[in-house]
Amino acid sequence: MATETVHVKNIGLRGVTVADTKISYIDGENGVLIYRGYRIEELAEQSTFMETAFLLLNGYLPKHSELEEFERQVVQWRELPGFVLESLEKFPRHADPMDVLQACVPMLAIDDPELYDDSKEANIRKSVRLIARFPAVVAAWHRIGNGEKPLPPDNGLSHAGNFLWQLTGKKPSGEIARDLDVCLILHADHTFNASTFACREVVSTRAHLYAGVSAGVGALSGSLHGGANARVMKMLLKIESEIKSADEIGAWVKNMIESGRIIMGMGHAVYKTDDPRAKILKMMSRRLAEETGHAHWYEYLDRIEEEGHKEFLARGRPGIRTNVDFYSGSVYAMLGIPIDIMTPVFAISRIAGWCAHVIEEKFAEAQEKPALYRPEAEYVGHYCGAVGCTYEPAKARG
Amino acid sequence: MATETVHVKNIGLRGVTVADTKISYIDGENGVLIYRGYRIEELAEQSTFMETAFLLLNGYLPKHSELEEFERQVVQWRELPGFVLESLEKFPRHADPMDVLQACVPMLAIDDPELYDDSKEANIRKSVRLIARFPAVVAAWHRIGNGEKPLPPDNGLSHAGNFLWQLTGKKPSGEIARDLDVCLILHADHTFNASTFACREVVSTRAHLYAGVSAGVGALSGSLHGGANARVMKMLLKIESEIKSADEIGAWVKNMIESGRIIMGMGHAVYKTDDPRAKILKMMSRRLAEETGHAHWYEYLDRIEEEGHKEFLARGRPGIRTNVDFYSGSVYAMLGIPIDIMTPVFAISRIAGWCAHVIEEKFAEAQEKPALYRPEAEYVGHYCGAVGCTYEPAKARG
Repeated sequence: MATETVHVKNIGLRGVTVADTKISYIDGENGVLIYRGYRIEELAEQSTFMETAFLLLNGYLPKHSELEEFERQVVQWRELPGFVLESLEKFPRHADPMDVLQACVPMLAIDDPELYDDSKEANIRKSVRLIARFPAVVAAWHRIGNGEKPLPPDNGLSHAGNFLWQLTGKKPSGEIARDLDVCLILHADHTFNASTFACREVVSTRAHLYAGVSAGVGALSGSLHGGANARVMKMLLKIESEIKSADEIGAWVKNMIESGRIIMGMGHAVYKTDDPRAKILKMMSRRLAEETGHAHWYEYLDRIEEEGHKEFLARGRPGIRTNVDFYSGSVYAMLGIPIDIMTPVFAISRIAGWCAHVIEEKFAEAQEKPALYRPEAEYVGHYCGAVGCTYEPAKARG
Repeated sequence: MATETVHVKNIGLRGVTVADTKISYIDGENGVLIYRGYRIEELAEQSTFMETAFLLLNGYLPKHSELEEFERQVVQWRELPGFVLESLEKFPRHADPMDVLQACVPMLAIDDPELYDDSKEANIRKSVRLIARFPAVVAAWHRIGNGEKPLPPDNGLSHAGNFLWQLTGKKPSGEIARDLDVCLILHADHTFNASTFACREVVSTRAHLYAGVSAGVGALSGSLHGGANARVMKMLLKIESEIKSADEIGAWVKNMIESGRIIMGMGHAVYKTDDPRAKILKMMSRRLAEETGHAHWYEYLDRIEEEGHKEFLARGRPGIRTNVDFYSGSVYAMLGIPIDIMTPVFAISRIAGWCAHVIEEKFAEAQEKPALYRPEAEYVGHYCGAVGCTYEPAKARG
């Protein structure tokens, strides 16, 4: 236990190391992201989201038979409980998908047959159920909110492919499903980001996994976190409606920076160089733009990136570079994902990392830490000494 | 921004000051708790929960007319939206009330007519709605879960009185309602405890108030946090079934401590002396025990406290003393609150503090801090250098 008070006020815990982790590692100076020892580039090229989720949860790459069993379990838990679907039918149709997802997580807790078993093994099984059901909730609500019936899962499709089917009612090509699967790999974990820290913080009280994950969904919904990909896409659509050619991008960028406005998708708390995920998404965005007739989207984004880096460099801020959200919005759009579903898609991926972190928080080998996160704050408010201010009854206050 | 890394690993942020606050202040050495300048003893004696909630949210004690208007608004928002009640009717009856409450908070977000207005004034109005509706959710679920119909609010009753009516279907006496109101005052805020920090952490991403509060409910559900009052009560009932007289308490306490088990309701992260709330609850427990024929409950608790302090003192740990949960369980039981509703009652009170902290987090005067909480972790896992470990395809792994 700390005996002295450490002051790290008003810096959002930036640069404050609060725990050990074995799940992922970021080398922000060199643009490296590693899950359980493996580089994100390698996983994006060769792994699948199912395998990556297994890796994050269990700490090692599965044998072929283990992966098959893991995939079988996920498929088995794709259906939503009847009472969740019946409740969703009662929700007002204007409901934001992230609010709906946050509400559904504790509802799924109620359905979990092992809710009160807090062993590591049971937590891994609960994680499998959440990984399986997150896409189902998002797809079901998207359809119900649009006045359509939810679709049953197609167990012949991959995790990403089945989500696109349940969302849109169209069976995606293998290429489209694979592109989305790669996006899910890329977003699956990112050390102690705000939503992951929220999950860990909540379960540090010994709350169950669902209680923590619901908090993670809440944090991800913030516009500074998971909401950023949708905001990049909205920015792109606005630019598309305002300019005639990519030659106008330079002036647009300059104007944004000079007027102190934020270019969505640029800058990151951790990376001081290119975000390795952004590089992969950029290549995907370029290919999809050509294939789907959105070449100008890619052209605009590429120019914003180039001009943005130039402008920030000229202002002595070379570290402000494109982040994961910069290209993911356009990629999602070209994969057929509506703007309001982009942050939920982030959640469908990050659920793997959240669960891995919850399990690490609950079962860390070094259990010297006090059981829950309980920081201090400095009181700078009204104060009349330890005797307190004099209370005057309401009627006397006028 | 911090440029150097600060290491505060595995201490649950104990003694780490992360922000300024004007909401509440704890002097742990002297057993002092202050809300917005006023001592908890003074508020418990003279204020009401409605007035205390106004104080926490707005920073000052209301004029008589302001308090009347605040109470009028709370009464106006006591009813739950139809779709929330209809959904609750679909939930499996075994659902834990805290899971239900956590699910309902984002559902109430969907119903909020000002959800997308993030001004301070709108956040205060949203807070009023949540303060009004928390008791309604808890009472409605308690009845539905027991196969009974939810009851409409009685607008002639106080906040605490109406909750007891909606929960039990019996109109409480003025004294009982006042006792519960005092309990709500006592639990309304407690600086940066785990659930409050969860609320602040989530909204630091610019997520809305409901997203943060839902996280707070999740954190409170943990057995190390809000769950402790119910666990004290269960401990008391177990003792009641095992011993014949209070004379056996000394041996029971000694046995617990010597066998390394935890006595629920003793010890606190912050107080090194008596928790001022515990002192007030102790007096209330004593009076209620006499009035309701549970004199032995009080006698047992009083002896556990006395023997526990003596044993811990003898072991050089004088700081382990009774906390707020130690007497609140028995008080709630004697006010007619079932054990599974004790943690939700904590939430019905703490919602006032959570909302005040969310608003402070969103509108702190010093906005130098980076927008969201994003700590670091030290990677101690599998590592093959910046090139990453070699990925071997699943089939090759056997």
